[in-house]
Amino acid sequence: MQNQVWRLARKPPGGWPQAEDYLWSEEAVPEPAAGQMRTRTLYLSLDPYQWGRRRSGSEQPGDICHGRTVSQVTHSRLPGYAEGDFVFNTNGWQSCGLSGDGIDVFGYMLPRKIEPTLAPISTAIGVMGMLGLTAYAGLILQCQPSRGDTLVVSAASGGVGQVVAQLGRLYGCRVVGIAGSAAKLDYLRSLGVDAVVSHRSEFFVEELRAACPDGCDIYFENVGGGVFDAVLPLLNRGARISLCGLISQYGNVDGEDSRSQWRMQGEAIFQRQGVLVHDLFVGNFVADYQERFLQEMGAYVREGEVCYLEDKRAGLEQAPEVFAQMLQGDNFGKTLIAVSDDPTLTD
Amino acid sequence: MQNQVWRLARKPPGGWPQAEDYLWSEEAVPEPAAGQMRTRTLYLSLDPYQWGRRRSGSEQPGDICHGRTVSQVTHSRLPGYAEGDFVFNTNGWQSCGLSGDGIDVFGYMLPRKIEPTLAPISTAIGVMGMLGLTAYAGLILQCQPSRGDTLVVSAASGGVGQVVAQLGRLYGCRVVGIAGSAAKLDYLRSLGVDAVVSHRSEFFVEELRAACPDGCDIYFENVGGGVFDAVLPLLNRGARISLCGLISQYGNVDGEDSRSQWRMQGEAIFQRQGVLVHDLFVGNFVADYQERFLQEMGAYVREGEVCYLEDKRAGLEQAPEVFAQMLQGDNFGKTLIAVSDDPTLTD
Repeated sequence: MQNQVWRLARKPPGGWPQAEDYLWSEEAVPEPAAGQMRTRTLYLSLDPYQWGRRRSGSEQPGDICHGRTVSQVTHSRLPGYAEGDFVFNTNGWQSCGLSGDGIDVFGYMLPRKIEPTLAPISTAIGVMGMLGLTAYAGLILQCQPSRGDTLVVSAASGGVGQVVAQLGRLYGCRVVGIAGSAAKLDYLRSLGVDAVVSHRSEFFVEELRAACPDGCDIYFENVGGGVFDAVLPLLNRGARISLCGLISQYGNVDGEDSRSQWRMQGEAIFQRQGVLVHDLFVGNFVADYQERFLQEMGAYVREGEVCYLEDKRAGLEQAPEVFAQMLQGDNFGKTLIAVSDDPTLTD
Repeated sequence: MQNQVWRLARKPPGGWPQAEDYLWSEEAVPEPAAGQMRTRTLYLSLDPYQWGRRRSGSEQPGDICHGRTVSQVTHSRLPGYAEGDFVFNTNGWQSCGLSGDGIDVFGYMLPRKIEPTLAPISTAIGVMGMLGLTAYAGLILQCQPSRGDTLVVSAASGGVGQVVAQLGRLYGCRVVGIAGSAAKLDYLRSLGVDAVVSHRSEFFVEELRAACPDGCDIYFENVGGGVFDAVLPLLNRGARISLCGLISQYGNVDGEDSRSQWRMQGEAIFQRQGVLVHDLFVGNFVADYQERFLQEMGAYVREGEVCYLEDKRAGLEQAPEVFAQMLQGDNFGKTLIAVSDDPTLTD
């Protein structure tokens, strides 16, 4: 039994990723030292930031390509982990890897043990991971939805947005989703979102107002710019905003902090309406809320009350091609490579 | 004596601001109620976010156009404020206005008294205000520069960036400024920045590396994207990053938090090099550091050690035209309208 590995062959020369950027090799399975364990990769996450690492030289030619993974322990010399345990770790683009104790940039312990009875283990990469906690922290912990609230979600078909939209419905909100294409709006309708609006529509402002006859009580902000322009006049007294991101910015190319400009634009309405604005950083919620989140979200996922679209492709050898497609494509759902058989799945 | 006022005439119909968006009027000078004071506007700040307010309907036709101002008290019924005091407040586009007690979105008390011996009072809008505190908090309080550190500043010619660059020199750093045009690079050279690099250069990565022969100890991040790609491999052991903004993003149009992607891109190098990353929000520093900041920055400004470019135009009647120019132009320096004579200036 060999370890299958994708290594970076060269610094990508510009443009999109190419097959020549990578080198496939079959190598000896690594042996864990004391304080390490070997895990078999079950799922590999493909994400845009990996491309940034390769372009920047954070990954050097010869390095194993980085990636977050869901894995199963096959040989442990790390106290607290036993053969057969499932973990979220960073094996990268290889069929097995070594893990020791560590802590990631969000304050998570890595490897992080996955409880397979909570939800399908692949979701540790998405709805049961950082992405789901971002949605949960912003909507539930920060904005505290009440039954009957109107919740407006920008970039609602995105990874975080679609979870926010579904959580909003579970908490009894009327959910209005904003997205930019007919396919995305259809997807939001299929999730049971109450009203959908395209920010590309010529009549976006009017359509959003019509979709919010009782105004907006909670705004989950991913976008800024013209979408924020349109939401501002709809904010009700006591509305809450979770400021997750600002994809579109205010032409502040000279380096003014876009969050400051965003706040100043909203200031008059925030003050008049008593609007509470929360900056959202998932790292602030890991220590105190991770367990509560996993229990609650796990129940929703098991019961099918929160759906989370995965685009799973089988076989590590496909990773470079699928990665290039993900970067260029208008893909839907989290891109995963199923690297080896998931023993928790029965078919 | 009448109050001169620019009111919003209509919701701007799209495109750039036009003269027809505004209505000039001469009105009775308002009388302060108990707990209010009247102030004469000396300087009016013109900023891009004001355009967002008008497009969004945060400002309604008939409203006085919003703007931050430096003013002088002419009639006070507000305890703690006396005739002749200088204040930072929000009179908007008018020659005088009423102020009561309040608190702004950054946690500042408004009106905020200005001590005219510290620095020219117009700078309360810029280097002695929120913008300067942003630079000070990110560089000095978060990144703690030491003599000999190499400091890299992205968007270095911007409002915050240019203050960071100059503070860096005062603390003994070797300062490398990144900007996007020859004029901006020239300006940075005139501030005494040690090396300048254009992120638009074909050889940006190589030029930045050559400008940092001893690597990078402090990175003031305004931009993300390809600039971050280039800085990452230069980060020294124990480097510090202040993450102020991410103007360029990672194509994460589906609403993933760009700060999360940024962190994941940098994770390997952050961990290997023990890099400390600080999220920068100026509001977190107001309560504890405002006084220290004003004293220290005031001394730098008085002694000419921190220069801050202002683009001052005389006369409130010019505001609509100057505002449109600022939005469209490649302007340099903070745009201010000198509304009435500044009594602290002697010529």
